Amino acid sequence: MARTASLSGFPEWLPQERLVELHVLDTLRKTFELHGFSSIETRAVETVGQLLRKGEIDKEVYGLSRLQDEDGEDAKSDKSDPNALALHFDLTVPFARYVVENAGYLAFPFRRYQIQKVWRGERPQEGRAREFTQADIDVVGDGELPFRYDVEIALVIAEALSALPIPDFRLRINNRKLAEGFYRGIGLTDTAGVLRSIDKLEKIGAAKVAQLLKSELGATDEQAGLALELASIRTEDTSFVDRVRALGVKDDLLEEGLNELEQVIQAAVLRAPGKVIADLSIARGLDYYTGTVVETVLVGHEQLGSICSGGRYDALASKGNRKFPGVGLSIGVTRLVSRILSQELAAASRSVPTAVLIALNSDDSWSAAQDVAAQLRGRGIATEVAAKAEKFGKQIKFADRRGIPFVWFTDDDGKHQVKDIRTGEQVDADPASWMPADEDLHVRVTTAG
Amino acid sequence: MARTASLSGFPEWLPQERLVELHVLDTLRKTFELHGFSSIETRAVETVGQLLRKGEIDKEVYGLSRLQDEDGEDAKSDKSDPNALALHFDLTVPFARYVVENAGYLAFPFRRYQIQKVWRGERPQEGRAREFTQADIDVVGDGELPFRYDVEIALVIAEALSALPIPDFRLRINNRKLAEGFYRGIGLTDTAGVLRSIDKLEKIGAAKVAQLLKSELGATDEQAGLALELASIRTEDTSFVDRVRALGVKDDLLEEGLNELEQVIQAAVLRAPGKVIADLSIARGLDYYTGTVVETVLVGHEQLGSICSGGRYDALASKGNRKFPGVGLSIGVTRLVSRILSQELAAASRSVPTAVLIALNSDDSWSAAQDVAAQLRGRGIATEVAAKAEKFGKQIKFADRRGIPFVWFTDDDGKHQVKDIRTGEQVDADPASWMPADEDLHVRVTTAG
Repeated sequence: MARTASLSGFPEWLPQERLVELHVLDTLRKTFELHGFSSIETRAVETVGQLLRKGEIDKEVYGLSRLQDEDGEDAKSDKSDPNALALHFDLTVPFARYVVENAGYLAFPFRRYQIQKVWRGERPQEGRAREFTQADIDVVGDGELPFRYDVEIALVIAEALSALPIPDFRLRINNRKLAEGFYRGIGLTDTAGVLRSIDKLEKIGAAKVAQLLKSELGATDEQAGLALELASIRTEDTSFVDRVRALGVKDDLLEEGLNELEQVIQAAVLRAPGKVIADLSIARGLDYYTGTVVETVLVGHEQLGSICSGGRYDALASKGNRKFPGVGLSIGVTRLVSRILSQELAAASRSVPTAVLIALNSDDSWSAAQDVAAQLRGRGIATEVAAKAEKFGKQIKFADRRGIPFVWFTDDDGKHQVKDIRTGEQVDADPASWMPADEDLHVRVTTAG
Repeated sequence: MARTASLSGFPEWLPQERLVELHVLDTLRKTFELHGFSSIETRAVETVGQLLRKGEIDKEVYGLSRLQDEDGEDAKSDKSDPNALALHFDLTVPFARYVVENAGYLAFPFRRYQIQKVWRGERPQEGRAREFTQADIDVVGDGELPFRYDVEIALVIAEALSALPIPDFRLRINNRKLAEGFYRGIGLTDTAGVLRSIDKLEKIGAAKVAQLLKSELGATDEQAGLALELASIRTEDTSFVDRVRALGVKDDLLEEGLNELEQVIQAAVLRAPGKVIADLSIARGLDYYTGTVVETVLVGHEQLGSICSGGRYDALASKGNRKFPGVGLSIGVTRLVSRILSQELAAASRSVPTAVLIALNSDDSWSAAQDVAAQLRGRGIATEVAAKAEKFGKQIKFADRRGIPFVWFTDDDGKHQVKDIRTGEQVDADPASWMPADEDLHVRVTTAG
């Protein structure tokens, strides 16, 4: 399936590909709901003022305007007009607005999942589309939010990703307090600047990051060395704590961050063994996180970029003096599904939901065939009725082309038989009780190889 | 819930309202899949040229432009530029494009369902939003499409609507061939003009439509009278055939239309009794149907407008000489859900998916509580774990505020009990086997009264 999107950056799936995407979406939804997350959707449209509240990202936003705006009432989208309308570019900004607007109707801590399309006018490339689906979970508190939710969110995501037909993955987790406390402890006070430089580690390498730290932030050789040593720590257990302490830096915020990250990793070692690592190079430089930060890679597909990112915000939203801290993670569904499809990592067992095609004996038998179909559907068996009484060979071919496993025949005496067209086996069957094998009842999506 | 949308025409639901919408969407999906319809999604974005191909509707379209378009590569949305981008206003136009683009990969007749948001920049009012969800089913053929699919589509929709928590409904079905053949037979050749006038029947009444027919289309008193007599025919069975014949008009196309509509109504009397009527006033004036046409009203909510419309197109799409005829219907999900919510016609049994809250005895018991939760989730029971070991009264209140029916306690000796907080009943329970009653396992959505 190496089709090209007819509009670059706007992928569309064939029916059998969509079944893989549906399986991913259904699996995520099921996991999120089992953990008590409520579904919400927000409108696709926000005001420009809302979207650009935190600045920096306006290049990616699609503005809206009515094509034929006769009365001039609707403003043309224009970043200078905060009331102009535009498409959301993530689900966090709209969720923050939703929480503030509906605070009086929500029970805090409020846990929600949100699976929707978002749009960014970026230059399309592999793993980066202009229209794509994100699946977010967040817990947001009113005033305060126990740290335990940081642990829980990571575990829920590890469980959700484990249920998907994707290669092995690693959640790489760090903590902003740890990093900022450490930089402060070694005398680098522009912590945002250090984070931005460290964020480039994978792209430009340690030597060039050291140069940046020295030239742009005035770091000494020793300071740059220590910052890079911190970023080089990567452990599958809580041994990172000792390794950080061995660097001899003292700072209260550093201690708080060490303690928080230790809790997350400790729980993960127990409950999601092998899926989570402490990675002290994770910076997420441009985002406004205040504690836990997470990125996720598919093992063997690291160059795809993070497939799930997020973290803790002390103030996801605020309403006057009232603050709503939040912690959440966002899965890049389209990025994942594109990879699954382009590398054929998983596939659907057939291209349609239909399990049974009811063949027609004669054109007059359509109504009787509908009766049989209704009985099968009543037991959850997806069933189609042929539209014309073509030769049986043609009707079987109709099923075969779609991957429909069974064709049902009723002769003029009302005798029913069902044929498994994969094996050719044909047996008597009762419309009131016949069931296909479990694995044929619904479309299954299975990993290749 | 008389909340106002923060952006007029862009409704958003609270979590408990979203559960009603999810129930509607899940029910539609299940019915469509049981009938063998494949899911597809198309991008939200089309080119202006594609959207305005059939003219007339450009006032409603939202154009897109990148807010900060530095290099001027992306054109500002402008209806004079056919390559400019805009949001789709229905799912039929994008589906037609999808069929043409992917014809080589699809098995025809191709049956698909498509549930997505669409956008129209219309003035918002009750039952009409600027962003709303449609649920469409269509069957499209390559070259030809048996008429039987017109019958089937009507039956599938009647079954789908019957499964929803909505008031009784009526599919009002007519046939363009019948109407056009009749008008031609009485000497009115501008059939499109007559349809446009007849379409106004409910709004302006018979007398004014007669005037229109005479003044704008040059009809005689007798012609106007006959056209209105035809439009007054409404039957729950196939008796409309005799009533049309009694008007004494002879025309081949009329005969074809009578025969087609008779087939639909005959099947509906048998398979969807009471849900379908032949209504010869249905015109759907502005749309490009060529046979069956359908509108649907909720009984007692007629002023809401049609909640499901569509029909047969001889050429839903075309590619050179190749024609793709189609028949389909589109349910206005947001219109339905808005009405259900504003009139409290149905409600969710609780506001969250969670069935069980695991209470904490002490802060150290969190990990043991997660073990219990994992066992429950393994049996499909949605479970949350409290984040803090607050007083039990407070933990019970946490569950109560969300409508979570059960709270689970584990004492220091590892003895498990579960409390139904609605009745206060508390019993011993085994995490490896306890199940809630079926009606408490999942959120249920039930009709009021």
